[in-house]
Amino acid sequence: MWAIRAKVRECMEKEVAPIMAEYWEKAEFPFQIIPKLGALHISGGTIKGYGCPGLSVTGSAIATAEVARVDASCSTFILVHSSLAMLTIALCGSEDQKQKYLPSLAQFKTVACWALTEPDNGSDASGLQTTATKVAGGWILEGQKRWIGNSTFADVLIIFARNTATNQINGYIVKKDAPGLTATKIANKIGLRIVQNGDIILKRVFVPDEDRLPGVNSFQDTNKVLAVSRVMVAWQPIGISMGVYDMCLRYLKERKQFGAPLAAFQINQQKLVQMLGNVQAMFLVGWRLCKLYESGKMTPGHASMGKSWITIKARETVALGRELLGGNGILAEFLVAKAFCDLEPIYTYEGTYDINTLVTAREVTGIASFKPAARSRL
Amino acid sequence: MWAIRAKVRECMEKEVAPIMAEYWEKAEFPFQIIPKLGALHISGGTIKGYGCPGLSVTGSAIATAEVARVDASCSTFILVHSSLAMLTIALCGSEDQKQKYLPSLAQFKTVACWALTEPDNGSDASGLQTTATKVAGGWILEGQKRWIGNSTFADVLIIFARNTATNQINGYIVKKDAPGLTATKIANKIGLRIVQNGDIILKRVFVPDEDRLPGVNSFQDTNKVLAVSRVMVAWQPIGISMGVYDMCLRYLKERKQFGAPLAAFQINQQKLVQMLGNVQAMFLVGWRLCKLYESGKMTPGHASMGKSWITIKARETVALGRELLGGNGILAEFLVAKAFCDLEPIYTYEGTYDINTLVTAREVTGIASFKPAARSRL
Amino acid sequence: MWAIRAKVRECMEKEVAPIMAEYWEKAEFPFQIIPKLGALHISGGTIKGYGCPGLSVTGSAIATAEVARVDASCSTFILVHSSLAMLTIALCGSEDQKQKYLPSLAQFKTVACWALTEPDNGSDASGLQTTATKVAGGWILEGQKRWIGNSTFADVLIIFARNTATNQINGYIVKKDAPGLTATKIANKIGLRIVQNGDIILKRVFVPDEDRLPGVNSFQDTNKVLAVSRVMVAWQPIGISMGVYDMCLRYLKERKQFGAPLAAFQINQQKLVQMLGNVQAMFLVGWRLCKLYESGKMTPGHASMGKSWITIKARETVALGRELLGGNGILAEFLVAKAFCDLEPIYTYEGTYDINTLVTAREVTGIASFKPAARSRL
Amino acid sequence: MWAIRAKVRECMEKEVAPIMAEYWEKAEFPFQIIPKLGALHISGGTIKGYGCPGLSVTGSAIATAEVARVDASCSTFILVHSSLAMLTIALCGSEDQKQKYLPSLAQFKTVACWALTEPDNGSDASGLQTTATKVAGGWILEGQKRWIGNSTFADVLIIFARNTATNQINGYIVKKDAPGLTATKIANKIGLRIVQNGDIILKRVFVPDEDRLPGVNSFQDTNKVLAVSRVMVAWQPIGISMGVYDMCLRYLKERKQFGAPLAAFQINQQKLVQMLGNVQAMFLVGWRLCKLYESGKMTPGHASMGKSWITIKARETVALGRELLGGNGILAEFLVAKAFCDLEPIYTYEGTYDINTLVTAREVTGIASFKPAARSRL
Repeated sequence: MWAIRAKVRECMEKEVAPIMAEYWEKAEFPFQIIPKLGALHISGGTIKGYGCPGLSVTGSAIATAEVARVDASCSTFILVHSSLAMLTIALCGSEDQKQKYLPSLAQFKTVACWALTEPDNGSDASGLQTTATKVAGGWILEGQKRWIGNSTFADVLIIFARNTATNQINGYIVKKDAPGLTATKIANKIGLRIVQNGDIILKRVFVPDEDRLPGVNSFQDTNKVLAVSRVMVAWQPIGISMGVYDMCLRYLKERKQFGAPLAAFQINQQKLVQMLGNVQAMFLVGWRLCKLYESGKMTPGHASMGKSWITIKARETVALGRELLGGNGILAEFLVAKAFCDLEPIYTYEGTYDINTLVTAREVTGIASFKPAARSRL
Repeated sequence: MWAIRAKVRECMEKEVAPIMAEYWEKAEFPFQIIPKLGALHISGGTIKGYGCPGLSVTGSAIATAEVARVDASCSTFILVHSSLAMLTIALCGSEDQKQKYLPSLAQFKTVACWALTEPDNGSDASGLQTTATKVAGGWILEGQKRWIGNSTFADVLIIFARNTATNQINGYIVKKDAPGLTATKIANKIGLRIVQNGDIILKRVFVPDEDRLPGVNSFQDTNKVLAVSRVMVAWQPIGISMGVYDMCLRYLKERKQFGAPLAAFQINQQKLVQMLGNVQAMFLVGWRLCKLYESGKMTPGHASMGKSWITIKARETVALGRELLGGNGILAEFLVAKAFCDLEPIYTYEGTYDINTLVTAREVTGIASFKPAARSRL
Repeated sequence: MWAIRAKVRECMEKEVAPIMAEYWEKAEFPFQIIPKLGALHISGGTIKGYGCPGLSVTGSAIATAEVARVDASCSTFILVHSSLAMLTIALCGSEDQKQKYLPSLAQFKTVACWALTEPDNGSDASGLQTTATKVAGGWILEGQKRWIGNSTFADVLIIFARNTATNQINGYIVKKDAPGLTATKIANKIGLRIVQNGDIILKRVFVPDEDRLPGVNSFQDTNKVLAVSRVMVAWQPIGISMGVYDMCLRYLKERKQFGAPLAAFQINQQKLVQMLGNVQAMFLVGWRLCKLYESGKMTPGHASMGKSWITIKARETVALGRELLGGNGILAEFLVAKAFCDLEPIYTYEGTYDINTLVTAREVTGIASFKPAARSRL
Repeated sequence: MWAIRAKVRECMEKEVAPIMAEYWEKAEFPFQIIPKLGALHISGGTIKGYGCPGLSVTGSAIATAEVARVDASCSTFILVHSSLAMLTIALCGSEDQKQKYLPSLAQFKTVACWALTEPDNGSDASGLQTTATKVAGGWILEGQKRWIGNSTFADVLIIFARNTATNQINGYIVKKDAPGLTATKIANKIGLRIVQNGDIILKRVFVPDEDRLPGVNSFQDTNKVLAVSRVMVAWQPIGISMGVYDMCLRYLKERKQFGAPLAAFQINQQKLVQMLGNVQAMFLVGWRLCKLYESGKMTPGHASMGKSWITIKARETVALGRELLGGNGILAEFLVAKAFCDLEPIYTYEGTYDINTLVTAREVTGIASFKPAARSRL
């Protein structure tokens, strides 16, 4: 595990760090890093065979954190590709599908995305409205998807739709150039600006039978994938916070005001230790989550609590870091400002903080409280 | 006062709001709005005569808030021009200087900036190192300035430098095209992206005697200006928070999840009321600050406490708003995301939160604690 | 107003402060202070005539804060007596009842309490189950009340019960020695330990017709009283926080560690200024609430937001104060520890923080969210 | 370890829980529980031999948490006796002293206390002023101690004093009935009310040579003891928080308002999950601290960060629990109110939160910031 960590850290610091502020500012994706990420051999994460690395969950988590430590966008790019799209093929695909798609994705020769969310269904993802209708030799997909990371350039799109016959959720592998498929970049993002999120429109997109994922027959089937992916997502804020802490400690020792290094001021010292305490606690909570998963004991409530608790502590941590850097804390090239912004979409995606706390609470209390009561207007 | 408020609000919502997300994303300044801002007749704020509006401090504060409610960058652009640069001329300039510069600035026919901060002197502004050396017929300025808002295109630059003879701070009016003067835009900002902050380099810049500000003879003289400007800055987060609250209330009533408007969920309701409570309190604290100023009772400690307290509450408020908008909370065009980012530089400029609390504490306890003790290394 | 303030402050500091830690520790009421409080001529607050002082709402609020600044229990004792019980008689009583009861209560010759809450109905007070059944010449009250302040020794008890004929809420004046009435002191309180809260049992208590309050005919009628009382309750945390701030500033200047007064440490200075900023903001929010009330514009949402916002800031403020006093911060005689504990029941009574935010949210959004949806068990 | 946990939990719930609210209210110590605590065989903790249990640090920590889960005072009573006093004898005592004192203390036949803090030296404990002067056959102790837990009834007192010849700190074993020794109970505490803290006065107290601890020759020698004890103290808030969480979950499921269990309300659910997330993280941070200690890697900075981080999270956790219990949250017999108060002294003792963060910061930055600079008065 520590070997992966060292390898990923070296690549991120040498190859990725120097160019990310520029691409973040432009909100463009640096395609030149894809081969370098491919060479790390972490794509596919926990998947065994098909050219995938077969890492432990903990190993994959550590790799995720190390990527996020330098650039969270880069980490999200990988997670969408690997822990959502590839994992769906690995868990819900046919043997043919696995052999056909996974090896190329594992080497980053092709890139994938994963499309569940729709314009009107965010927290209530199960209400999705894109339809899949059986026709001769395949299916017709019709509908819209929103926020889909990597979708503007992905070669392979995993798309979820409601089977018009059964009213259940099915999953499909759709190719980049499928007629009727368009993906438009969502602009004006304040965080993860390097990640290319798209608005997808599906206008009578035909998918042959062989590209339907046989293992997706209900909304519950997406949860097997989301369980792993939520663990990985929980490690993004850990990595981000580690990076911010490291940068702040260095900065405070170097920068002087009033004749002394910023590290000598009581107020700064206390913030730094708050950050370090948070980082350690987040790391341990993430670690425990991996161990629960690896021993087959992790429940949805565990994953949701892990993701939400870690994310809220990271939000506190990066805000402290932002303060510590003063004016330079608003410049993306000092990393802390970028991290401060990147944390926000992570706080919200794969279950907002609020939704995740309610998922855990449902498990703990036995009572679901997602929906409000029928409203009594004043 | 309410007439100004209505006039500014209408202009901001109709003329400015529709284009700001685009310019924010590009980090460019929309020069086409300058005549519209000029027509509001708020430039010059509290200055009487010389074509300035002669508003009360409260009136000027309300105008500031209304501008910031829609776009904080726009508000900072005005404050730098009006409450820092023009006010310095009004308070420290000669009669000739006032007559020469203020009328054009008041109409926004010319734009001004104000240069105090240097690369190595942020919180400890009094340590500035730019020099002014007396020569025949004028002065030679030599040094660097950093973070100077509007400086990349300002016609008139107010520049502070240390008189090499007296070692005291002097102030100068420098023209855009002065030989030896360059201002380079600071890129990669996460907030107030529309404001053009510059790194200024002064290489043997000659300033004629007539452009030395006779009223600036020590660092203390800048404080007269900063006292008013800090009150205005305190109203920026008030305006920002009002805008965020208004947007959130509208959004929560319109957007549905789980079959109900987001406004029907307990957790969302509580956040909304936290925000509203903060907005009201901030407004009252800002109001009180104006009244103290107008009655001649405002101390530096009052201004610093007002600015820091309001800013930290605004930071809490915009973070709540960011959460309430979920995924759309990270898109600048929904205004909340932009506000969330814009708050950060405001949290830090005109005295960071920490420095301002220590300024107030010095007044309250009689003890200055800015500088740490001579360090005892381990 | 400032005259009342000075008079109350002097009495509280000279007569009350020296003995309160002792009574707080014993959880007993110091009956010897009643005549001193009577002499302040603040009982009855805003009521005009009948020997009452007829203060403005603002005047009465300032008096409340000054009492709470030294001892919150003492303030609660007065509020229950004056702003709940006396005000109910003034607003809902007959002319005879006013003449009979108010003059003696105004002089604190008699003490009153006010009984709405029941063991099973806290936040949902409207669900009360105590019954009032019409019989010849009067009414029979049957049921239980809980948490009723002053009830173990009050001469006059205002009791609310559900009319078994109309199912509406009615109000009654019950005398201390009414057969069937018992009030047992609630022990083991961590805050407001001087206030004697009682568990009341009503076993077929007869109340003559003349002691029914004619103006209470529904639950809504209690709201007229609660509107004023909530404003007064909002001023308790203001007073408490002022007292804590004053004590902390004095302590930090006097106590030394590491060879310097505690007031010289950056961390302590920042906490002190956070406290002062909160105190100022709370004061202004409370002031605004009074002005809204006095101009007839105060809504239930205003009162609830004022009470909840002020209380949560006070909770933050007293916790900071508790820290600043270190070890002495856990001793009641240093006042801060007592204040820290006293804030907790205030945070919860007259509408918990949560309920008050939802009351305001209902007004703002037009949607009530108090009740959860019919539960879907897992 | 889990056997100890079960044994301690059973004893605490059956024997101790039912009586603690009463003694807490009275601020008295329930001597009848001492034999029951003795029978648990946890006194002496990690000490091997001399009748002590020789637990691992982790085992001792788990026992500490289980005691604190029901009653924090009881836990402090044991820690002072075992992890401070007994451990000092074990680490710094002679073989004769160990054989003479430890077996009886391990069985709780005798009780010990540990006296370092003085009235004028809290956070700056190294500045202690009590003196020890060599005389024929022994030493004369002169001075005062403050806050010493168990001291009003302890049989054995470990007392630290400054050797008047060397100016270094020495340690002494003093017997309860030593002439010149008095210990007066500190009254009016808001937390840990069962713990009997004393103000000790030493008036020419003679200690024979054989009762001087040969291993205490400087202030640094107390740090060996404080290192272990700080780990144990860090487990008190963990235990307290576990107890509060358990109580809240039970209460929310049982208590109804508005026709539904309190556990069905979104706001309550979120608070509950915040608490649970904190409890898990605290537990893991505490666990990691034990493992660092057991592997010989724990630094003072680790211990200080663990104690301070855990304590501040516990403070947040018990405050949430306090809210969740509403009115019953201010009654000590519901346990949460008691826990809320008990946390405060723990937040402050064995290094306040602030001091502990600065200890860690010194290790991380290499710069000590405890002392403020020589003051520049305004």
